[in-house]
Amino acid sequence: MPLKPPLIVLNMKSYQESSGENGLNLAKICEEVARENGVSIVVCPQQVDLTYICKNVTIPCLAQHIDPIESGGYTGWISPISAKNSGIKGSLINHSEHRMILADIDLLIRRLRSLDLISIVCTNNEATSRAVAELRPDFVAIEPPELIGTGVSVSSAQPEVVSGTVNSVKSIDSDIKVLCGAGISNGIDVRSAIDLGTDGVLLASGVVKAKDQREALLDLISLI
Amino acid sequence: MPLKPPLIVLNMKSYQESSGENGLNLAKICEEVARENGVSIVVCPQQVDLTYICKNVTIPCLAQHIDPIESGGYTGWISPISAKNSGIKGSLINHSEHRMILADIDLLIRRLRSLDLISIVCTNNEATSRAVAELRPDFVAIEPPELIGTGVSVSSAQPEVVSGTVNSVKSIDSDIKVLCGAGISNGIDVRSAIDLGTDGVLLASGVVKAKDQREALLDLISLI
Amino acid sequence: MPLKPPLIVLNMKSYQESSGENGLNLAKICEEVARENGVSIVVCPQQVDLTYICKNVTIPCLAQHIDPIESGGYTGWISPISAKNSGIKGSLINHSEHRMILADIDLLIRRLRSLDLISIVCTNNEATSRAVAELRPDFVAIEPPELIGTGVSVSSAQPEVVSGTVNSVKSIDSDIKVLCGAGISNGIDVRSAIDLGTDGVLLASGVVKAKDQREALLDLISLI
Amino acid sequence: MPLKPPLIVLNMKSYQESSGENGLNLAKICEEVARENGVSIVVCPQQVDLTYICKNVTIPCLAQHIDPIESGGYTGWISPISAKNSGIKGSLINHSEHRMILADIDLLIRRLRSLDLISIVCTNNEATSRAVAELRPDFVAIEPPELIGTGVSVSSAQPEVVSGTVNSVKSIDSDIKVLCGAGISNGIDVRSAIDLGTDGVLLASGVVKAKDQREALLDLISLI
Repeated sequence: MPLKPPLIVLNMKSYQESSGENGLNLAKICEEVARENGVSIVVCPQQVDLTYICKNVTIPCLAQHIDPIESGGYTGWISPISAKNSGIKGSLINHSEHRMILADIDLLIRRLRSLDLISIVCTNNEATSRAVAELRPDFVAIEPPELIGTGVSVSSAQPEVVSGTVNSVKSIDSDIKVLCGAGISNGIDVRSAIDLGTDGVLLASGVVKAKDQREALLDLISLI
Repeated sequence: MPLKPPLIVLNMKSYQESSGENGLNLAKICEEVARENGVSIVVCPQQVDLTYICKNVTIPCLAQHIDPIESGGYTGWISPISAKNSGIKGSLINHSEHRMILADIDLLIRRLRSLDLISIVCTNNEATSRAVAELRPDFVAIEPPELIGTGVSVSSAQPEVVSGTVNSVKSIDSDIKVLCGAGISNGIDVRSAIDLGTDGVLLASGVVKAKDQREALLDLISLI
Repeated sequence: MPLKPPLIVLNMKSYQESSGENGLNLAKICEEVARENGVSIVVCPQQVDLTYICKNVTIPCLAQHIDPIESGGYTGWISPISAKNSGIKGSLINHSEHRMILADIDLLIRRLRSLDLISIVCTNNEATSRAVAELRPDFVAIEPPELIGTGVSVSSAQPEVVSGTVNSVKSIDSDIKVLCGAGISNGIDVRSAIDLGTDGVLLASGVVKAKDQREALLDLISLI
Repeated sequence: MPLKPPLIVLNMKSYQESSGENGLNLAKICEEVARENGVSIVVCPQQVDLTYICKNVTIPCLAQHIDPIESGGYTGWISPISAKNSGIKGSLINHSEHRMILADIDLLIRRLRSLDLISIVCTNNEATSRAVAELRPDFVAIEPPELIGTGVSVSSAQPEVVSGTVNSVKSIDSDIKVLCGAGISNGIDVRSAIDLGTDGVLLASGVVKAKDQREALLDLISLI
């Protein structure tokens, strides 16, 4: 598996600072920081930039979302196989800004696995994390919605949610990896996430909207 | 405006035959056929390929769909500005495989115009075509859903729907252009669409799934 | 037609103050005020109360929403015919809290008409009001979303939107009636709505959440 | 708990045969058959008939669906508290014809419990049944979508799916009851469902669309 923990997963969302050439620049910064520091950084480019950015960086790229469809007459939707053709290594599933129905989460996890793609399923609390763990994704990413975009990190504000989720998920299947997200913005947040037993973090605005994106990334990985 | 009627708009949908490198090859075939024959061909690449294909062809590219959001924390959605940054000239809106609520159709038409992007709004009958015309898009594309993907062309099966729509739309605003779609697969279909007063056609499987895509395109434009 | 302008349409929404027996009490207050004052008041009970309230009052009841389905295997959805069987006289369509896709608005207007039911289609601005008018509903109800629930009435805050909508809609089809909503809470709001050319108002919290619902209703109709 | 296994849950869906007075008649047949034979029969009336039917029968009624909202400005949606006010004892959640996002399934189970209402969460396979069991509903109802409405019963066509689901769910929490659905139409189907370890069945067309609904019901319970 190309995604060695601890993992920094950078979700570019739909910000202007990560769109088009800005997105490629940000992906290249991640690539350099990863190589120079020997850390695992993964980027989730904007959907329209996926093929373009995958072709221009060597670090793993993930889709932010994939639709539960097969190839065919589905105008404006993204099939797993078209996503794979873009060059991605996997996808986020069920992000809090793009929730999915349960049967589709199950379907997509199995579909991605059959295509040799990694699944990272986002959850909002410990109960839904256990539920998702029963579907055997590669990763569960716990993100309490009330902390997303706040700068208040889940690992400091709700450490018991993070460690509880790690324990719950690992007790169902110890092969499933756990990320935590929401409010992650500096090295201390990442360090405490790792100390709570996670395999890495999922973050967005802390780097995308930073005045100096490289500096923000370097700070993030400083205590790994 | 770079989109001179009669217009051939090729919607690549989510077929494997139009995904990734297949999509780029198909776009290049369209580019060559357009240049060599002096006709207007526009392609709608798959969403993940938009930036990649826009950078590699000179014919206009359109998005198959854009979401009614601004830039920001919208994981896996496509904002108008991110779509514009990919290099597109406009977008399909409200395709029958990706319907939108009325208020969002209105919002997107105005948003695209403010970004100097073309809007092509799909409709399913004459009444909804009149409704959309009141929102002043650049194009209305009438596609009776029951004919999509059948190979039975709307221009031959329901000529009165096509001409009725042209008359209705032009009587509301003569600047709005009308395309017709559904079942278009050969030069006769295109010719009769033009003879019924349309400004071109919207099609997909007739070319994407053709054994020889170039030949299918050449046949399509043979009677223009 | 049993709905003689000026019309007061009271949308009960999902408030506790209008749920179950509270909803029946409120409908009975409307019935008494309507009869005693010779005004047309129509109520939109909560969905689960529709049959119950329709059977217990004589004023017209409308559904708050109907789903674009036929009878059949549609668990938890409401078909036009099941709605009709409840005893309603018509339905709101496309309320700002329950938007619908354009093709379904068109379908429902025609389906309700075939069942001899009244359609009141909500819109958010003058452009979408014109669009809806092309679909020939019985009523268009213009409600600028930014004013809903504010207590600032559309007829005083945006009189030009109201009169512009009336003119636009009537110029498309003078048989279509126009209501206005958003922020309507007293007799002056209703009076100015009528003076701006509307056929009545659509309101909710101004009566449902009033300390004394009867008094609020009496005030509303005081200047008709 | 008023719902003693084995349980027959009759989902009225949106059929004409179960709408309005037809729905009340069907509920009364269920009431008589339950009383005369000492079996537990529960009905899920159509949404618009909920309050009306709950007030007129003594057997437990369930909603077919509830929306994940609180009381308030939600036109055309059904809040848990409004549903409770109708007189129901609980609700189906996530029926295959009305799927929900994972976070909302979790929210609704907890919300219904806080209102002392029963939750029956529908699932499509063994994996999603385990996932739902982690959310601790009162019931899981496994219904392979490909068998719904076919008359081919899940208990005969896929007995290993039923028993596997029973084992999986009970191993997560032995207090969770399991129903099975899809294709259930006679007493043998019900008997084999019970023999496979379930606490009852969920069915619809087998009774709703039967020529003689009472006879169909009597046959269903004949081997309990």
